[in-house]
Amino acid sequence: MQIHPLVAIVTLVALLVYFYMGLRVGQGRTKYNVPAPAVTGNPDFERAYRIQMNTLEWLPLFLVSLWLFAIAWGSDLVAAGIGLVWIIGRILYLTGYSKAAEARGPGFGIQALATGVLLFGALGKIIWMVVQKGV
Amino acid sequence: MQIHPLVAIVTLVALLVYFYMGLRVGQGRTKYNVPAPAVTGNPDFERAYRIQMNTLEWLPLFLVSLWLFAIAWGSDLVAAGIGLVWIIGRILYLTGYSKAAEARGPGFGIQALATGVLLFGALGKIIWMVVQKGV
Amino acid sequence: MQIHPLVAIVTLVALLVYFYMGLRVGQGRTKYNVPAPAVTGNPDFERAYRIQMNTLEWLPLFLVSLWLFAIAWGSDLVAAGIGLVWIIGRILYLTGYSKAAEARGPGFGIQALATGVLLFGALGKIIWMVVQKGV
Repeated sequence: MQIHPLVAIVTLVALLVYFYMGLRVGQGRTKYNVPAPAVTGNPDFERAYRIQMNTLEWLPLFLVSLWLFAIAWGSDLVAAGIGLVWIIGRILYLTGYSKAAEARGPGFGIQALATGVLLFGALGKIIWMVVQKGV
Repeated sequence: MQIHPLVAIVTLVALLVYFYMGLRVGQGRTKYNVPAPAVTGNPDFERAYRIQMNTLEWLPLFLVSLWLFAIAWGSDLVAAGIGLVWIIGRILYLTGYSKAAEARGPGFGIQALATGVLLFGALGKIIWMVVQKGV
Repeated sequence: MQIHPLVAIVTLVALLVYFYMGLRVGQGRTKYNVPAPAVTGNPDFERAYRIQMNTLEWLPLFLVSLWLFAIAWGSDLVAAGIGLVWIIGRILYLTGYSKAAEARGPGFGIQALATGVLLFGALGKIIWMVVQKGV
């Protein structure tokens, strides 16, 4: 791949972190006795499930913004760096929320900030290009 | 970005509408007293949550079809226009469903129609190209 | 589309299978008397809902890995073939889980294996390219 290999690596590592969250839910079904198809009934299981679901909810925001940012700015390293911040935020979110719902804030904030920089950075740059050069 | 800047803008605006739906869920946790990790217990909260979730459920259908349509047909403006119809449908879905579950129909129908045009438009064109030119 | 038409077709067919799962949930609301916004209350409905949700949970893992695999290896046919295995796994998952939660295993395993080959195949190849050629 000639374009954006670091962004591609960050993308796949982010998906591996997300996959691990799903793995914890699967294991939690046995551990906390929550047989499929239920997703409620035990607070520890419900937090594990919400960790996965909230990350899923943010994946389209993050991944699409990450790639449009990289393409619009023609930058692999900067986009990958901001993507790495998102991953760190999501790991803190996972470790915090696993302990208590109240401890999910800092990790959530970090990943939201990284997503915001990518989304508005991409949107601003693309609008600017359209305005400057025409469609 | 030389290719499909309007589709990129429509993509990011659609994600902002989706982000706003998630924001309403976050605010609803305080407003309707539904502390994390619960996602049930209050009908107003549950509707806000389903607005976000249903939109998330359709995002892969919409976004992937939108880009494959734009690439397959080599069209930025038409794809972006259909994408804009999707956004309008989703805003009507949000405003309708916020009031009552029964009022979610029209907005849902509009976004489903736009998604269908993009998905089958892309699929038909790509199959046609494969058949015509070979793989 | 000059690049990866077979992967594009597999992508859209996978989305159609996923769309059908969502359709079953919508029909299940009437059939099993689970009015929106509820997503619980009837075990048949809950299984239909989990079939859709679990597939949604895996869509980012599958679709992103599929395309990065195809791009990294410069292969349309192989990537599309593995993607087809994923679709078959998901159809088995749908038919199995529809009958009983216990019968969801084989289909789930097949799609997980296909996703794993795509994800680690893409990640390994891209890391190798970065190491070999530098960024």
